[in-house]
Amino acid sequence: MQSQFEAVRARSLALAAPLSAEDQCIQSMPDASPTKWHLAHTTWFFEALLLAPHAGGYALFDRHWHYLFNSYYEALGPRHPRPQRGLLSRPTLEEVHAWRAHVDAAVCRLLADADAQVLAAISPVLTLGLHHEQQHQELMLTDILHAFSCNPLLPACAPSAEPALRVAASAPALDWLAHAGGQVEVGHAGQGFAFDNEGPRHAVLLQPFAIADRLVNCAEYAQFIADGGYQRPELWLSEGWAAVQTQGWRHPAYWLAPDDPRLALHGIGGASGWHVFGLDGLRPMRPERPVMQLSFYEAAAYAEWAGARLPTEFEWEAASADARFCERDDQAWQWTRSAYGPYPGFRPLPGLAAEYNGKFMVGQMVLRGGSLATPAGHSRPSYRNFFPPAARWQFSGLRLAKDL
Amino acid sequence: MQSQFEAVRARSLALAAPLSAEDQCIQSMPDASPTKWHLAHTTWFFEALLLAPHAGGYALFDRHWHYLFNSYYEALGPRHPRPQRGLLSRPTLEEVHAWRAHVDAAVCRLLADADAQVLAAISPVLTLGLHHEQQHQELMLTDILHAFSCNPLLPACAPSAEPALRVAASAPALDWLAHAGGQVEVGHAGQGFAFDNEGPRHAVLLQPFAIADRLVNCAEYAQFIADGGYQRPELWLSEGWAAVQTQGWRHPAYWLAPDDPRLALHGIGGASGWHVFGLDGLRPMRPERPVMQLSFYEAAAYAEWAGARLPTEFEWEAASADARFCERDDQAWQWTRSAYGPYPGFRPLPGLAAEYNGKFMVGQMVLRGGSLATPAGHSRPSYRNFFPPAARWQFSGLRLAKDL
Amino acid sequence: MQSQFEAVRARSLALAAPLSAEDQCIQSMPDASPTKWHLAHTTWFFEALLLAPHAGGYALFDRHWHYLFNSYYEALGPRHPRPQRGLLSRPTLEEVHAWRAHVDAAVCRLLADADAQVLAAISPVLTLGLHHEQQHQELMLTDILHAFSCNPLLPACAPSAEPALRVAASAPALDWLAHAGGQVEVGHAGQGFAFDNEGPRHAVLLQPFAIADRLVNCAEYAQFIADGGYQRPELWLSEGWAAVQTQGWRHPAYWLAPDDPRLALHGIGGASGWHVFGLDGLRPMRPERPVMQLSFYEAAAYAEWAGARLPTEFEWEAASADARFCERDDQAWQWTRSAYGPYPGFRPLPGLAAEYNGKFMVGQMVLRGGSLATPAGHSRPSYRNFFPPAARWQFSGLRLAKDL
Amino acid sequence: MQSQFEAVRARSLALAAPLSAEDQCIQSMPDASPTKWHLAHTTWFFEALLLAPHAGGYALFDRHWHYLFNSYYEALGPRHPRPQRGLLSRPTLEEVHAWRAHVDAAVCRLLADADAQVLAAISPVLTLGLHHEQQHQELMLTDILHAFSCNPLLPACAPSAEPALRVAASAPALDWLAHAGGQVEVGHAGQGFAFDNEGPRHAVLLQPFAIADRLVNCAEYAQFIADGGYQRPELWLSEGWAAVQTQGWRHPAYWLAPDDPRLALHGIGGASGWHVFGLDGLRPMRPERPVMQLSFYEAAAYAEWAGARLPTEFEWEAASADARFCERDDQAWQWTRSAYGPYPGFRPLPGLAAEYNGKFMVGQMVLRGGSLATPAGHSRPSYRNFFPPAARWQFSGLRLAKDL
Repeated sequence: MQSQFEAVRARSLALAAPLSAEDQCIQSMPDASPTKWHLAHTTWFFEALLLAPHAGGYALFDRHWHYLFNSYYEALGPRHPRPQRGLLSRPTLEEVHAWRAHVDAAVCRLLADADAQVLAAISPVLTLGLHHEQQHQELMLTDILHAFSCNPLLPACAPSAEPALRVAASAPALDWLAHAGGQVEVGHAGQGFAFDNEGPRHAVLLQPFAIADRLVNCAEYAQFIADGGYQRPELWLSEGWAAVQTQGWRHPAYWLAPDDPRLALHGIGGASGWHVFGLDGLRPMRPERPVMQLSFYEAAAYAEWAGARLPTEFEWEAASADARFCERDDQAWQWTRSAYGPYPGFRPLPGLAAEYNGKFMVGQMVLRGGSLATPAGHSRPSYRNFFPPAARWQFSGLRLAKDL
Repeated sequence: MQSQFEAVRARSLALAAPLSAEDQCIQSMPDASPTKWHLAHTTWFFEALLLAPHAGGYALFDRHWHYLFNSYYEALGPRHPRPQRGLLSRPTLEEVHAWRAHVDAAVCRLLADADAQVLAAISPVLTLGLHHEQQHQELMLTDILHAFSCNPLLPACAPSAEPALRVAASAPALDWLAHAGGQVEVGHAGQGFAFDNEGPRHAVLLQPFAIADRLVNCAEYAQFIADGGYQRPELWLSEGWAAVQTQGWRHPAYWLAPDDPRLALHGIGGASGWHVFGLDGLRPMRPERPVMQLSFYEAAAYAEWAGARLPTEFEWEAASADARFCERDDQAWQWTRSAYGPYPGFRPLPGLAAEYNGKFMVGQMVLRGGSLATPAGHSRPSYRNFFPPAARWQFSGLRLAKDL
Repeated sequence: MQSQFEAVRARSLALAAPLSAEDQCIQSMPDASPTKWHLAHTTWFFEALLLAPHAGGYALFDRHWHYLFNSYYEALGPRHPRPQRGLLSRPTLEEVHAWRAHVDAAVCRLLADADAQVLAAISPVLTLGLHHEQQHQELMLTDILHAFSCNPLLPACAPSAEPALRVAASAPALDWLAHAGGQVEVGHAGQGFAFDNEGPRHAVLLQPFAIADRLVNCAEYAQFIADGGYQRPELWLSEGWAAVQTQGWRHPAYWLAPDDPRLALHGIGGASGWHVFGLDGLRPMRPERPVMQLSFYEAAAYAEWAGARLPTEFEWEAASADARFCERDDQAWQWTRSAYGPYPGFRPLPGLAAEYNGKFMVGQMVLRGGSLATPAGHSRPSYRNFFPPAARWQFSGLRLAKDL
Repeated sequence: MQSQFEAVRARSLALAAPLSAEDQCIQSMPDASPTKWHLAHTTWFFEALLLAPHAGGYALFDRHWHYLFNSYYEALGPRHPRPQRGLLSRPTLEEVHAWRAHVDAAVCRLLADADAQVLAAISPVLTLGLHHEQQHQELMLTDILHAFSCNPLLPACAPSAEPALRVAASAPALDWLAHAGGQVEVGHAGQGFAFDNEGPRHAVLLQPFAIADRLVNCAEYAQFIADGGYQRPELWLSEGWAAVQTQGWRHPAYWLAPDDPRLALHGIGGASGWHVFGLDGLRPMRPERPVMQLSFYEAAAYAEWAGARLPTEFEWEAASADARFCERDDQAWQWTRSAYGPYPGFRPLPGLAAEYNGKFMVGQMVLRGGSLATPAGHSRPSYRNFFPPAARWQFSGLRLAKDL
């Protein structure tokens, strides 16, 4: 358990390593957090939920920081306002690193000293903390990418680090995988860790449907744009159309149109087509890559335009077992047509972690799968990611479905 | 069919009759519309969707008004901005009345002249128009009540017109109705009119549950308030708690606390307890009445406090056939835990009415039942009303459920 | 004094007479008030400042209305929020008329019964009330014109009532009136009524300057537009340029460009040039008319473009005595370069009227002159009107000045 | 000239030295800028206005940075939006330092190579650039102090660096300095550098007045608070009272009331009185120190409460020559009653610097004097500082005046 702990904790630092202290301090919108804040908050989680209740005699490293790095746990007291996380030049990055080391040592000591009974008591919290930190690893990449997208210099977050992608050089034709519907079991089956929102496992009834074997790619999405996708209200949900108009959406969040003035700033001529800003910086659009940084509204409008629809989260889960189901969790999260809500019989985690998931079960849509920014092994077929339908700074794309 | 048409149209005018021309012009928030606008818009609906396409040679009464009184139909061209409906002192109420008479005569003429084939073609639109107008009849009451709630004089909308209520003078004890769960059919069964969003009828799987035989009443809700319901974040969804804090919610929208300065303005002393503003004006809170003008967030927080939960829309529909299920559709709409989305295989209405329901299927929660402001016979067990979770100016209350 | 009182009070009603009760209820923005509110507020002024303190035994007509129709007098207690004046369908227009009659009768009775000593006590307040009502007469026209400008039907406020204008059919060439500068006296000289902000009269030093003998007219302003006036930042004050960009200003507030869709709605072809919406409705732009409904920012940008500047309020006052100084107070208020502040030794009025002027002496610019909507005889050379620099719904234009 | 150039440039770096790279990156509100941005912008000024036009063959260090570090010069092209300056983690602080060195070397080279004719051409721009940089030196302190005030840790900007203050340990009694009024000359007299807004020098007429020999101190301001200063609308300008209510002002921006939760966080008990956050961190309020971080509204309300008024900028300038006039420019800028506008005959600087001052001449109030953060020798009696009346994050206080 200790080696797993050390590996997860080390990976957070490795992800931040290419970034300067300045980079790690900035916050580009209220929904995003600075890298340093993520590093501190994941540390706070272990201190507040593991060490403080379970490590006898543990003294808080700095009690001010409990105020600064609590994210949203009402039961743990008041906290620094979310939109002001980018103002925390103090504590410095160095101090946060020292805190991480201090807490890591204390956790390792706790583990080393624990007998079987103590281990049984602390291991659910420790495990939760590790999965929590993995979620924040994806958020670190998601958020710094947004921050850098606001800088006209469009720097690369991870110049050489983008994972090798398994997609073919030319986009394969999309195949439809048929499913007969009927009664299927959904939710976590009980082996290994899962978040509370993945259970209880239960049966649902599905109608016959088909689902695409891969994600919608950039070439296809560019056709949607070229066909007036962002000018045709009949393709859009009402809230989505309002967003298109008030926000001036014309393409995915990190696409640069050929006439974008930032291209000229980078010495790229107007005839050079779409460009996309990603973890490796500004690149010509690669047609075969899954389209990303889409809101739910855009995903739904694309599906409507394509004569299809988004899958429900249960269709997705049932179909994902098919061996031909590609790009399951290594490219982009996949918006579903399902609003995020509790499963029948859902109960939140006991104790301080009760606020982890349940209190967000309104106003959000479920995404399934995983992305190129998701730590390997973190996701599962029953995994339920969720975001408000207008959010478009995540690694979020779509997979089509249709009735049979 | 003509008599039904005339009856529905006459009822709209009857509802507006106690209101002055000034009353009928005001708009108290972007989500609400003036009474006059409702009278005009329902007329526009018949002119644009029935007369213009089907009544040969029909000339528009005034082509400007098509711009002014289109609500949200993108396919029918641009329209007056919703937040500015209250600025339309012209056309005058008198002119709108003349328009109604003109359109009514044309519709009756169309009906009188129609042969069987024409009748078959127009009757779906006519029927839709009547149900549409009934929906606006409830909105007329909903919206003018909000407008009057913003006037410190707190005038009564309908001094003597509140329907006789069937509730007992003292609140009966709440009984739980058990349901065994299993596979049930939901959605409109196919007899008589239903909106597109009520179908296709399909099977769903339910877990065993129990549901309350009546709505939560004011006395019970006052206990929730007295127990600190609006001060305890652990009872609330995260978005709901944010609304409580930013909006300063302390009680349902139209309740007046004993220290409300408007009570003093009306000569009511501070020791006289809760008051409630309703269609019949300002009255002492009646404990046995269902609580109303609640947001989804408040309904969900109350249920949490009560150790229960909200029903899903399918639990509600399945249980509502029970003869002991009281206050089904004559007191207050009932928030469910279900987000508003399409049923499997849902297709919007063909033609211009396609925008009626489907494009709102994100970001809203389903309410079931009906209210004291719903026209008699308008609702059905499969009827799906929907509002954003923060909306609280409607006749919306709650009924509890729990797992078995 | 009674006949003057009756004449002023009657004129308010006469101005409102062409408007329906609905028209008189609407409020198109927080800065504007409904006609009915103006009728009520001017009545409140006499009741609160004259009758209540001075008419022994006078009982308030309705004590709620003191809350509703106080404009901004903190010393007289809390009041209805300004942005919600348009929600006051109650009291009805009829009730406000009854209130006016009741108060008028009481004032006349007070005057009739007053001995010389009482008359001396009340006549300053009565006089102030009459000038106050005249100010609101202009605001009534100003505000209803704005409200009607928001209605796509663009109705006329006063179909036949626009005062005969003294301007020539063709715009006369502009002449510059030279002034030698030096020490001049400014402020009210002490004869007749003046507001507190017009004194104390005092000496100021002026540099030699020249001022235009007439206002800038529409033909000239159209040249400014045609010359890119709204696209050239170097002509604008920084705040003004920000307003141009965030508000999308392209011309004066009530001008309609040839491609304005509202012209098509009125059956006017695109080749027909600029149109202007005014008290008499929608009309082709009349080149010789003074341009109006300008913000200070636009006035200053025009002056910069014309190689001139705006006059200071003292230059204006000193020059206005020149017999060749045309369009002094009968066309449009004239923005000056002077910020609105207190004169040396300024003291507010004693008693409740202390809040009349002084507390607004920051953040506003002075306009001098008078407009076609100003009651005859209301203005004076020392009169100081004032508005925030971004306001552009008033009858405000400009007169050029330059250094010599 | 070179040594002066080097001294000013070095002082900017010295001021920033105690701050980490993270500290220098943060922006706490749209009106404030990061330290790094100030360091870069002042460099941009020399590169864009001096080197680019005058140093033959000079190549821009990085042409992207011209977009990033232009503040508001429309004539020099589009620029990075002001509210997003805090997102510029790139260029890094180190890169900005390198830019500074590069530009400094080029400027020195230009000076070394210049003959008399070149020197005459460039020295006005160079001099302007130095005074510009000194202004930004004060803004650096002003802005970082605001940023740190948003951090609950309340770190000190300059732990040991606050200038020794000349005030006595106990506040001396305030003396009134009388001035006879009459015709006085104001504006820059022509010796040495002055900004364009300080001229032309001209004569104005003053009434007799008296002015305080020192600034209002904290002890006096605390009496104003204790006397209900922030609860009494009659003391406030209307806009000021609105700010008090909507912003919740209860004391100067950086005062901490005894019950401020941040005091508890720092282990300071509730009975310990007012504290003030300043450049040297959190300290008990020192009664004899001038009160600072006041808006114009607060300054005007205090003066009203004290039975006095603010001086006009010309009264201030005329009186400041008096030898008994203390705390002229070394403690806090002093709000005057004068709106910021052009002097008679004012013309902006020629060329690119034309936008320096003139385009801000509306909506702001003049402050005179100087503060403890103003570089020694930077200010003059004719110096006109200006800010919007609601601004309160500067080193701004007040000096009383009254009519005689």
